[in-house]
Amino acid sequence: MLIEYDAASDEVRAVYDDIRATRQTDYINNFWKALAVHPPTLQRVWELVRSVMTRPGALDPLTRELIYLAVSITNGCEYCMASHKAAARAKGMTDEMYAELVAIVGTANLTNRLADGFAVPVDDRFRT
Amino acid sequence: MLIEYDAASDEVRAVYDDIRATRQTDYINNFWKALAVHPPTLQRVWELVRSVMTRPGALDPLTRELIYLAVSITNGCEYCMASHKAAARAKGMTDEMYAELVAIVGTANLTNRLADGFAVPVDDRFRT
Amino acid sequence: MLIEYDAASDEVRAVYDDIRATRQTDYINNFWKALAVHPPTLQRVWELVRSVMTRPGALDPLTRELIYLAVSITNGCEYCMASHKAAARAKGMTDEMYAELVAIVGTANLTNRLADGFAVPVDDRFRT
Amino acid sequence: MLIEYDAASDEVRAVYDDIRATRQTDYINNFWKALAVHPPTLQRVWELVRSVMTRPGALDPLTRELIYLAVSITNGCEYCMASHKAAARAKGMTDEMYAELVAIVGTANLTNRLADGFAVPVDDRFRT
Amino acid sequence: MLIEYDAASDEVRAVYDDIRATRQTDYINNFWKALAVHPPTLQRVWELVRSVMTRPGALDPLTRELIYLAVSITNGCEYCMASHKAAARAKGMTDEMYAELVAIVGTANLTNRLADGFAVPVDDRFRT
Amino acid sequence: MLIEYDAASDEVRAVYDDIRATRQTDYINNFWKALAVHPPTLQRVWELVRSVMTRPGALDPLTRELIYLAVSITNGCEYCMASHKAAARAKGMTDEMYAELVAIVGTANLTNRLADGFAVPVDDRFRT
Repeated sequence: MLIEYDAASDEVRAVYDDIRATRQTDYINNFWKALAVHPPTLQRVWELVRSVMTRPGALDPLTRELIYLAVSITNGCEYCMASHKAAARAKGMTDEMYAELVAIVGTANLTNRLADGFAVPVDDRFRT
Repeated sequence: MLIEYDAASDEVRAVYDDIRATRQTDYINNFWKALAVHPPTLQRVWELVRSVMTRPGALDPLTRELIYLAVSITNGCEYCMASHKAAARAKGMTDEMYAELVAIVGTANLTNRLADGFAVPVDDRFRT
Repeated sequence: MLIEYDAASDEVRAVYDDIRATRQTDYINNFWKALAVHPPTLQRVWELVRSVMTRPGALDPLTRELIYLAVSITNGCEYCMASHKAAARAKGMTDEMYAELVAIVGTANLTNRLADGFAVPVDDRFRT
Repeated sequence: MLIEYDAASDEVRAVYDDIRATRQTDYINNFWKALAVHPPTLQRVWELVRSVMTRPGALDPLTRELIYLAVSITNGCEYCMASHKAAARAKGMTDEMYAELVAIVGTANLTNRLADGFAVPVDDRFRT
Repeated sequence: MLIEYDAASDEVRAVYDDIRATRQTDYINNFWKALAVHPPTLQRVWELVRSVMTRPGALDPLTRELIYLAVSITNGCEYCMASHKAAARAKGMTDEMYAELVAIVGTANLTNRLADGFAVPVDDRFRT
Repeated sequence: MLIEYDAASDEVRAVYDDIRATRQTDYINNFWKALAVHPPTLQRVWELVRSVMTRPGALDPLTRELIYLAVSITNGCEYCMASHKAAARAKGMTDEMYAELVAIVGTANLTNRLADGFAVPVDDRFRT
């Protein structure tokens, strides 16, 4: 069930308004409309996502989206791949960058299993 | 079993030499010494990793390491987290950047499950 | 391939009959009809599921379904989410409960990765 | 790195104080001390966890912990299994209940793969 | 908690005896001793494992163990990798075979993510 | 985006030709046509897959495909299940073998979680 802006409670509308203001677009994507069935979850998750993705910090906005995509591909989450691919493109991701990202994600999944399968001991110099 | 340089066959040594030249360090980490039990795997995986991580492209070396880390954290691969954390640091990752990365990785894992659990339909505008 | 009751061997029919009797419904869902291509698997898996989900014990039937759903959402298994959501509803799960469940599942996936990413050491008091 | 209460900034201390008040214990477990390296993440994640785990709702506190455990076992997160096992016990989980939980988690992981492997189509009646 | 043979109930001992007879060894490994805290789970899981791993069928015993290992490496389950590596060796797995297995497991994890990341449509000819 | 043979660059065509020669079929499946958007990835991944799946070694071609399938089912990768099921059938996999494979994959996923959930310590004799 997706809750549209016009059908939303004041509590939900306040979050939708903040999403619109933060992203500078009127469009609310389906993810938030689905979470709106449970307003406290909508609110807390949005606050976390806003903080993690838009709060000024050491990583630039595009890099954050690439990291998001890397996780979503690893988990095979279709919705998340589609929505964050769009978000990353809006922040400058080219087709070339996406292809390189997917190649790195695949390679990391490969070497993760090799490290586990061969039970590779952590090098002393890699221990903090 | 870890195969040291001095005990390595010519085939394995050639890969070790290429790792050293590419990374400009004498140090061969345990991952490669473990893969060396099977030289064709060592060779092919190294060629893929070298291509994906060092070939000139659209993503800078640090961003590539951050993507690698995002996957390794999602998979919970201890060796890979330790080794690529060291690699990322060598390429400029600060503690602040790492903390932000982990926060994004966690958040993506959260929203991936929310999207699946609420069976959120992909927005028309996110379809290519 | 789905094997219907009328087309089933005696061996498969015996399991179908037990499913019907245990669940007090004539409906056999597709999962079991698919497993019926391999009768020994059908039989052993049904015995395990029946034992785990219906045997009197310390957890009530609804709680068992919620746990099942938590795993299925984490694994992103579409069939299992759909079938166990129906089963949970039949045992009393409301929309509110489902929304809370999804929020907890998402949050656990978040903190699981944070714990791994920050390599948090287990507190002494949490060791048995 | 774990940040102790005495070494914490005012911002971090405010979260620690809220954790203590909410849980009615002086003990701050390592998870939060690790997140404290990045105060905005500490704050947002705590707010989400507090909301999801302690806000009055349709699911009782013990059921919430069982769901948390189901996810943590599926993800194989050692820290999370240890800490939430302790939390669940404090809320009334017996050894019998834990054993039943693990059995359900294992069984769900089994049937999730069977459903995927046999490509079982979702029953019409399970579609909302 | 591990339940030794001498401390086991008659119900548990019956399963232990069947494990010994089936495997033709007196040794009961820790996995079963841990499951023994919950006898119905011990019994049902053992019956499933015995059926799946030892019932005469189309796959030979070594191939079955290799499949088991492939899953356990993908899931990063340390206990399962260790125990099934020993089981596979007892059935003829050489170091060469294990290295090839790990290479295939890693490669499949790589291509799984590439297929998801590039959203590759299933070829018509691969649809049953 | 899928790149057909006639639209491919010389670099991509060389890989397609090698795929055709290695597999002795004119058919190039969608996976490779999708990877062709990034020729260096296409080339390196194909070289790895060719080495891992066709290089003479200790495991026969069918066993390699079964291992590939076990991983793909565990990861729930729809494309990979479909394509490698076709590949395995071409190498001799019967319906009976596939059903047994899925049963083993499911069972391993079950016991992996049981081992983690009960925190089973690795038996001394399983340590190398």
